Amino acid sequence: MKKKNKKVNAAILIIGNEILSGRTQDKNIAFISNWLNSKCGISVQEVRIIPDVEKIIISNVKNLSKKFNYVFTTGGIGPTHDDITAKSIARAFKLKYGFHNEAYKILESYYGRKKFNDGRKKMAKMPITSKLIYNPSSAAPGFMTKNVLSLPGVPSILNSMIENCKKFLVKGLKVHSKTLNLFTVESNISKKLGEIQNKYKKYVDIGSYPFFRLGKIGVSVVFRSTSKPKLNQVSKALIKIVKEKKIKILKV
Amino acid sequence: MKKKNKKVNAAILIIGNEILSGRTQDKNIAFISNWLNSKCGISVQEVRIIPDVEKIIISNVKNLSKKFNYVFTTGGIGPTHDDITAKSIARAFKLKYGFHNEAYKILESYYGRKKFNDGRKKMAKMPITSKLIYNPSSAAPGFMTKNVLSLPGVPSILNSMIENCKKFLVKGLKVHSKTLNLFTVESNISKKLGEIQNKYKKYVDIGSYPFFRLGKIGVSVVFRSTSKPKLNQVSKALIKIVKEKKIKILKV
Repeated sequence: MKKKNKKVNAAILIIGNEILSGRTQDKNIAFISNWLNSKCGISVQEVRIIPDVEKIIISNVKNLSKKFNYVFTTGGIGPTHDDITAKSIARAFKLKYGFHNEAYKILESYYGRKKFNDGRKKMAKMPITSKLIYNPSSAAPGFMTKNVLSLPGVPSILNSMIENCKKFLVKGLKVHSKTLNLFTVESNISKKLGEIQNKYKKYVDIGSYPFFRLGKIGVSVVFRSTSKPKLNQVSKALIKIVKEKKIKILKV
Repeated sequence: MKKKNKKVNAAILIIGNEILSGRTQDKNIAFISNWLNSKCGISVQEVRIIPDVEKIIISNVKNLSKKFNYVFTTGGIGPTHDDITAKSIARAFKLKYGFHNEAYKILESYYGRKKFNDGRKKMAKMPITSKLIYNPSSAAPGFMTKNVLSLPGVPSILNSMIENCKKFLVKGLKVHSKTLNLFTVESNISKKLGEIQNKYKKYVDIGSYPFFRLGKIGVSVVFRSTSKPKLNQVSKALIKIVKEKKIKILKV
């Protein structure tokens, strides 16, 4: 994995009617985003969930591919009629769609020649110049086309493949984070927090999220920065205010 | 709630760095989408998750507001500096941003005049011509601006408010669904399923999703249609094939 001394970003494109309809609770967004940030120093800047419709997939792939360093797609690479991600990506980039030699060999050897039926063969079809993302759990590979990495929708299979994406990615600066859990309400600290954010806006992003724990209301204040020293500086500034206001900090 | 004898659609715009970074697992997408479909006959056609950045919120609100009948935003309407949804929506539609008379009164009476500090007052600021979405659990209202309905990000509060959106929505045709859980692999039925989808593509959407249950691999085939008779017709066509192939159906 090459290293870059600057920020690298990505988008996630979830392809699937089952997520849009609410039938299935998505688990891939948080997993991919956490993995990209912690392992690759890449931060996800946009997520879209779209239906299994070719022209919608094409326009979103083109748009996100231009806007971000990498795009991760999930879903739509199986053997059934609603699996149209590979074909749509080929059309988006005007690349030849057909059997990928290596993918064909992997699948043929996995299923054995007799059981390698048309549905299974379909999983070897993709832009023929794609690079493969190997699949240790069920053989059918993902693939990288330009800056777009396509993974399956089933979380357990996706999780098993994610490390195989690493070699295709340029590593960016890791975003560190620090959280202070305070037993107070947001409106009690919002003014001071705004002032701190304003002072350090070049280096640190501050988010504030209400929580309910042990029957009490609280606020999680999350600091994010590529610089650890700045992170400590800003959290100290908040701790000073918290002490002045006699707010209890929840130790976790 | 008025009724319309055609399809009505919506988009969901999740505003929040905490979801993008993977720190927080989103629960609002599935909840809103299920509620819209089952209670209002409205189907969600696109979801986006974006950071708390004004110009990004503005461009997404404008874009989705044009493309869909309704847009639901979640997050960014609390009292802290990173809560910029209301201001961004006012700018997107070039509307005056300031204290909303009724929202101000609601919050003042909820907190009492003495405890109604600046942070809390901020929650009464929005496009001043917005319609309020009442909040039975923590007072601070959501609001509807043009076709955009803005709700908070905390799932328990959002859930308590969702019924109050109903009066602003035109009801569409409900999409019914039917699921067949089959103990087989996708590639065993993909060809026949494709033929059925092709024959009924005007009326029914068919999705196919692998599952793992009781130590076995299976496929959930989901049919969706605004017509119940068509739904039954298509599922019968699949059951016929399933019987021919001696595939076991999982009763749930």
